[in-house]
Amino acid sequence: MCESMKNAKIRLCVTQDLSDAQTIPLERDQAHYLFGVMRRKAGEFVLLFNGRDGEYLAEITDAGKRRGVLTCVKQTKPQTMPPDVWLLFAPVKKAPTAFIVEKSVELGAAKICPVSTRYTNSDRIRQDRMQAQALEAAEQCGATYVPEVDKLVKLEAMLANWPDDRQLVFCDESLAGAAETLTAQKGVEKWAILIGPEGGFSDSERDHLNTLPFVTKISLGPRILRADTAAAAALALWQSTLGDWL
Amino acid sequence: MCESMKNAKIRLCVTQDLSDAQTIPLERDQAHYLFGVMRRKAGEFVLLFNGRDGEYLAEITDAGKRRGVLTCVKQTKPQTMPPDVWLLFAPVKKAPTAFIVEKSVELGAAKICPVSTRYTNSDRIRQDRMQAQALEAAEQCGATYVPEVDKLVKLEAMLANWPDDRQLVFCDESLAGAAETLTAQKGVEKWAILIGPEGGFSDSERDHLNTLPFVTKISLGPRILRADTAAAAALALWQSTLGDWL
Repeated sequence: MCESMKNAKIRLCVTQDLSDAQTIPLERDQAHYLFGVMRRKAGEFVLLFNGRDGEYLAEITDAGKRRGVLTCVKQTKPQTMPPDVWLLFAPVKKAPTAFIVEKSVELGAAKICPVSTRYTNSDRIRQDRMQAQALEAAEQCGATYVPEVDKLVKLEAMLANWPDDRQLVFCDESLAGAAETLTAQKGVEKWAILIGPEGGFSDSERDHLNTLPFVTKISLGPRILRADTAAAAALALWQSTLGDWL
Repeated sequence: MCESMKNAKIRLCVTQDLSDAQTIPLERDQAHYLFGVMRRKAGEFVLLFNGRDGEYLAEITDAGKRRGVLTCVKQTKPQTMPPDVWLLFAPVKKAPTAFIVEKSVELGAAKICPVSTRYTNSDRIRQDRMQAQALEAAEQCGATYVPEVDKLVKLEAMLANWPDDRQLVFCDESLAGAAETLTAQKGVEKWAILIGPEGGFSDSERDHLNTLPFVTKISLGPRILRADTAAAAALALWQSTLGDWL
């Protein structure tokens, strides 16, 4: 078993329930990936998770060309949900957006929320593609959940309907010395982080954000960060101060 | 002047000294970029820095096909050196390496040090290409210096000759609960951050690092980070705790 576990490097996110001895019929795409692309064979092992039941070691008990069956052997990780922090970001070009999604999953965002702002570079997103990127990142990084990628909404609308019990960290690139410090706030367990678009926030967006009672303004230093760098940096700071890196 | 400054979005790193009214003859490549690619014309403005004299607004006073002259108008930023933190990382594939270089500059590393480890994916680097990527990132992010990209050295050799007065932050992905906290250490102003290769450190590398008196072990959370994510996250933590984000 020990040797098999070492070799069980492929991790798959599945929709079915996982429990000891549970059998998992594979979907066509999964079977193709596992047997066609990755050349795995019956008797070999993979790791499975579904966002609810933790991670399971599973044996390939049937391997066909376009179908297959896995059988759960035992749980290898308990289910762990990420801390409740959303990442709000203005979608940028294709590659940086993919990067932001991947990094958000690795750095433990609970939900990924594309928002459109005054200077947002694009008004449409490929939500399905971003969700697939999130799933792939979760398979890679050993997480037992896949953060949901929300549909694109206007920042304005999102702020107008902001939940009472959630704090928002506003990464303001124009801050000079006026930054607040991220600290635990009594009774607050729900957070979100807002990263601006490449063109920055408009003056009126910034003014509006500064009046909101649930906003904490932080600085990400004296250099101008790209949106993807800012997302990774802000999530790392949050996780190390308030999240699951403690 | 105010209008010109707004439009002066192009930033160039030059080798010449910068001071009021100083004229800067452009190199062939710079002239081609500025006039051929970016279509700038005499009378327009650019921003210049050289790593020593801060940032200057300069007017294009002569624009030829393969040559040109800029004339410094006034200093727009003082010279600011980054905090003294090196980023040591094991070169990975081409795209992640470019990303690590870019992010290191944005996040304020003073020097970028490629190191080869037991499980390093590549044994050669394109130092010239990485240095060019660092320069481009500095032009983009508003920094007034370009971190040097060092030549590739063996991690072993680097540790054997480690300077007495420099602390090393070791980002150990295998840490479970044994992490130390990044805190200021009396009299220590020189730091470095070590990021492992995609395959992780070998057991003997890890054991060796753990015996070194100048090493602080930190954790980057419960998920497995890609090398580029780890570099960005660790630099962000360092800058917000000990660097110039305070």
